Amino acid sequence: MGRFTEQDHADRMERATRDAITAGLAGLLITPGPDMTWLCGYRPPALTERLTLLVLTPESEPRLLVPALERGDAEACPGAGALRISAWSDGQDPYAAAAGLLRPQGHYGVSDSTWALHLLGLQEALPLTSYRALTTVLPMLRAVKDAHELDRLAAAGAAADATYEEILSVRFSGRREREVADDLTRLLLKHGHSQVDFTVVGSGPNGADPHHEAGDRVIEHGDMVVLDFGGLRDGYGSDTTRTVHVGEPTEEEIRVHETVRTAQQAAFEAVRPGVPCQEIDRMARTVIETAGYGEHFVHRTGHGIGVTTHEPPYLVTGEEAPLVPGMCFSIEPGIYLPGRFGVRIEDIVTCTEDGGRRLNNTSRKLALVE
Amino acid sequence: MGRFTEQDHADRMERATRDAITAGLAGLLITPGPDMTWLCGYRPPALTERLTLLVLTPESEPRLLVPALERGDAEACPGAGALRISAWSDGQDPYAAAAGLLRPQGHYGVSDSTWALHLLGLQEALPLTSYRALTTVLPMLRAVKDAHELDRLAAAGAAADATYEEILSVRFSGRREREVADDLTRLLLKHGHSQVDFTVVGSGPNGADPHHEAGDRVIEHGDMVVLDFGGLRDGYGSDTTRTVHVGEPTEEEIRVHETVRTAQQAAFEAVRPGVPCQEIDRMARTVIETAGYGEHFVHRTGHGIGVTTHEPPYLVTGEEAPLVPGMCFSIEPGIYLPGRFGVRIEDIVTCTEDGGRRLNNTSRKLALVE
Repeated sequence: MGRFTEQDHADRMERATRDAITAGLAGLLITPGPDMTWLCGYRPPALTERLTLLVLTPESEPRLLVPALERGDAEACPGAGALRISAWSDGQDPYAAAAGLLRPQGHYGVSDSTWALHLLGLQEALPLTSYRALTTVLPMLRAVKDAHELDRLAAAGAAADATYEEILSVRFSGRREREVADDLTRLLLKHGHSQVDFTVVGSGPNGADPHHEAGDRVIEHGDMVVLDFGGLRDGYGSDTTRTVHVGEPTEEEIRVHETVRTAQQAAFEAVRPGVPCQEIDRMARTVIETAGYGEHFVHRTGHGIGVTTHEPPYLVTGEEAPLVPGMCFSIEPGIYLPGRFGVRIEDIVTCTEDGGRRLNNTSRKLALVE
Repeated sequence: MGRFTEQDHADRMERATRDAITAGLAGLLITPGPDMTWLCGYRPPALTERLTLLVLTPESEPRLLVPALERGDAEACPGAGALRISAWSDGQDPYAAAAGLLRPQGHYGVSDSTWALHLLGLQEALPLTSYRALTTVLPMLRAVKDAHELDRLAAAGAAADATYEEILSVRFSGRREREVADDLTRLLLKHGHSQVDFTVVGSGPNGADPHHEAGDRVIEHGDMVVLDFGGLRDGYGSDTTRTVHVGEPTEEEIRVHETVRTAQQAAFEAVRPGVPCQEIDRMARTVIETAGYGEHFVHRTGHGIGVTTHEPPYLVTGEEAPLVPGMCFSIEPGIYLPGRFGVRIEDIVTCTEDGGRRLNNTSRKLALVE
């Protein structure tokens, strides 16, 4: 899979500008991070307190304001040919420079992760300009993936699946969670990931903390173990969870696992264009509530994925946005029994015209490990 | 060197709150990042769109608001005993929860790197509350280091020095910049760094780009090579630069290097309590201007260092804040001749009652390598 071209970036910036106008904005202000990477391909060598700002407005071609030190890096970025690049030097006021590119009373969308330092600087330089967080005003900017992006997400999913298949044959019993987590890291890298973002190994009672990472606990015979891992491959994310058992599970463990599996399947089957995001959450939640575990499903059902492993759309109560073909997101219900064990099952799913398509395809049955 | 204690964190939070009041603020709002790590020791498992907020006000003990998923992590942080921790769950409005901890018309300092998403959420929840970026209003919050912190910075500096001593005996000529950069990474880790933030190897014309990192260029006999490297050791930063030469330098190369060395020495000798930061910059700049290279010194003279490798105080024109004993910062003048070569020399220096003390102590003479 090749690099995205200058034309890809030009198209994205044009589409984003058009979406901004439709949303009633004067334009978009994008600082370094996933939005900037996706729009123009520029990743500064370091994230510092110096302002780097991509300005997208209908009045002009896309403009990239960078610290003078970064001019060379910016001019070498994949989207550079579609940008007008200008630089500010140490000692100059970058907010005055940025203000010169904006309408004094405009209403702009701004990257979620823009530093408060920069937003407050802009607010002071242009007191009548107003701002909205990009995911509030254009939450689905990056949510619908094109075919090329779907290829990358599928490849990342396949690499995560290969990692899971291989982890099943490592030894669990008698080893520390951290050691199994290191195995996951090694396997993700082996299968082409450039970056590993998380390797959760939650054994026994640690599995009941949905965000437990991996610690010094020694995994024992009889443990449920939640494995949740992912990162970036070719610039696009993977994220999958399977819960395995060391030796024979109890009846209760089987029942809880089956409940989560049924919930995950029910949510998956509900995926089709036009269904509100919160409906997918509701499907999973209803299964778990009906089984009597409602209070133990303590998080939302899923999140989008793309150039980050965590982005809109969110499958959560209150999210009424409809699913659109090309959206990619996790479906990951769980049940967490404090002090005892947890179960979570997660696939990345993309919405197609005909329903959901899983980008993770390993078995969701409870695997027994040693 | 042990972990900082709960008392260390309690003391820092108390001091920060007092400083905030003195600066006319109602309190401080701190999101994940170096300020939060330094104040209460909490590092969330991941930086996500979910609000995590430390609130420091004189009316209450320090309060930490976290997503429900992070409660366990927060309760295990080094400063937990000095915090009142509360949690919000997915589906709840975190800004309403945060607003309940604030005065509706208060004036708060907010972490520089707080996401715009969060600042805009707070601004909407409390329209009459106002905010200032922390480094604007309390720039020196973390700038003055205590003895324990100075020990860590000195140890990080010594590790960087050991790295430089060893890199002098690797082969430069005929190898790619990236390979020498990998050597620097390996050596920094060998000497106890937990994290490497940058390993600049700027050979020949690449040295004339002050922020060039390291690329595929093969280093040749006759090249000047800028080596600028650092990271974190025991949670505190290192950052040092030396410029070396492959084989015998020309007269011009020697002259440029000597100019930078003299500028660095002059700036160092100007360090003493009460001197404005910009004076240190002016000393280095004057030497370089007098030698006729003023237009080729394209960046400020230095930046502070602590739990990050880049923080206040900044040694730059316009920074009138006086040096205070315990401050730590880089002194790193340079001359960059586009298309030809660059020279930079950098030490971390701390201000003492009697003047500057260098935390980097390798020779600043032009070293010849092979």
